[in-house]
Amino acid sequence: MDPKASLTAPNAIREMIRAGDYSGPTNGFVPGFTQCNIVILPKAYAFDFQKYCQNNHDCCPLLATSVNDGEYHVNALGSNIDIRTDVPKYRVLRDGQLVDEVTDIEKLWRDDFVTFALASYVAFDYVLHTFGFDHTTSSPAHTLPMYISNIPSEPVGPFKGNKVVCLRPMDTQEIIRAIQAGSISRVPHGIPVHFGNPADIGINNLQKPNFGDPIFIPDNKQPVFWTTSLTAHLAITRAAPELCIINSPQHMLVTDRPDMDLLIQ
Amino acid sequence: MDPKASLTAPNAIREMIRAGDYSGPTNGFVPGFTQCNIVILPKAYAFDFQKYCQNNHDCCPLLATSVNDGEYHVNALGSNIDIRTDVPKYRVLRDGQLVDEVTDIEKLWRDDFVTFALASYVAFDYVLHTFGFDHTTSSPAHTLPMYISNIPSEPVGPFKGNKVVCLRPMDTQEIIRAIQAGSISRVPHGIPVHFGNPADIGINNLQKPNFGDPIFIPDNKQPVFWTTSLTAHLAITRAAPELCIINSPQHMLVTDRPDMDLLIQ
Repeated sequence: MDPKASLTAPNAIREMIRAGDYSGPTNGFVPGFTQCNIVILPKAYAFDFQKYCQNNHDCCPLLATSVNDGEYHVNALGSNIDIRTDVPKYRVLRDGQLVDEVTDIEKLWRDDFVTFALASYVAFDYVLHTFGFDHTTSSPAHTLPMYISNIPSEPVGPFKGNKVVCLRPMDTQEIIRAIQAGSISRVPHGIPVHFGNPADIGINNLQKPNFGDPIFIPDNKQPVFWTTSLTAHLAITRAAPELCIINSPQHMLVTDRPDMDLLIQ
Repeated sequence: MDPKASLTAPNAIREMIRAGDYSGPTNGFVPGFTQCNIVILPKAYAFDFQKYCQNNHDCCPLLATSVNDGEYHVNALGSNIDIRTDVPKYRVLRDGQLVDEVTDIEKLWRDDFVTFALASYVAFDYVLHTFGFDHTTSSPAHTLPMYISNIPSEPVGPFKGNKVVCLRPMDTQEIIRAIQAGSISRVPHGIPVHFGNPADIGINNLQKPNFGDPIFIPDNKQPVFWTTSLTAHLAITRAAPELCIINSPQHMLVTDRPDMDLLIQ
């Protein structure tokens, strides 16, 4: 299969991953189509986790949940998705600890698994691009620096923790336009939680992100922070369910849903 | 007439003004109904001025123009408006110089007059209020400080000049919410042109506004700037038409149009 041709359609990407031909990061694949962070939990945790996403929809925008227990399709995001094989790399957590990283989870699958798909911040990168932002400000092909802020999420059952935020450097005019783009597009992760002094939200060293890569901030720009769905991953680590499967960072589910169609509910 | 009862409807306010019972500022009257700055020009200037408003619609949002030359009704803004009497106070400019301030202009009226009505920044104050901003941040009853910035408007014929901006002090979270409110409501003057260092747009002393009153800026807030329709008044002063009539500052036409219905075209 020619990887370049495969970049044209989300289902071609998923086929390539399902066949075991690709297990790398999905950044920059099929721009304009939503990529999702995946959380797979035993049914016992499903209600609390769903409510956690609902109560923290700014950081955990839940796009889809599997309909029946043990179902490995997620038809709301694409007709032929098999969530056991269509993510390039999975992390297996037991009691909140990473115990394995694998390229498929067919052998681990259980009849009581529930799948949750959360929109990635990458959707807003695409929106910024359509609003005329250039790739030095925002690029779907790069991983933004991410930080654990001191802004608490709203706890539900065992799920709690601070919000994980990503950083894009912007000047004053870009901040104004970016908030307009987020407001008009209503895309998840579109409205910043903070800009200016990082210490205001508990971030003391921009050069040491908790996830992703550091970014250069020119003198005429300031750091602007948006939530990311890693907030959910952090909450799961703290909740420490007996078993949980998530995607490896930047190794996401590529869906058939256009980014511009992701209305915030 | 009981002035308190009259605050309930725009046409009651206009009747009171028309009868000569009130000639003061209109700030705070009938919150939620649009107040307009008025420009009345001889037909010879009408095309250029209309084009100036169109090309600078961010600062000069033209809501209505009289339909026929010499017509003193503005039906688009209210069915019984008589623009010769319904503004509490008018300024008469000859060759760009203020020569008189009067409470009606019936004797000055000419068959070649064209009336222009521009939405005031007050509409966005009402929107901010509906979005939960309190009156310490923004109040339709107060006059904001206004400054002549160094941002040029786009010149058309004799009309040119820098943009006049108003200032509201806001903290980071308020700036984010205000831009959302402006984007979602699409109300005129809803998107700021700048925030942060006033010197970036040529404003060197916040305590000395060119129009309006100075405002206190608490330590946790920064100045945020939006355009105002006074930009048009400034351009007219510079164009110096042989005759022009405008409303006195803060003495505006109270219309029947709801602020929330003022979609930017």
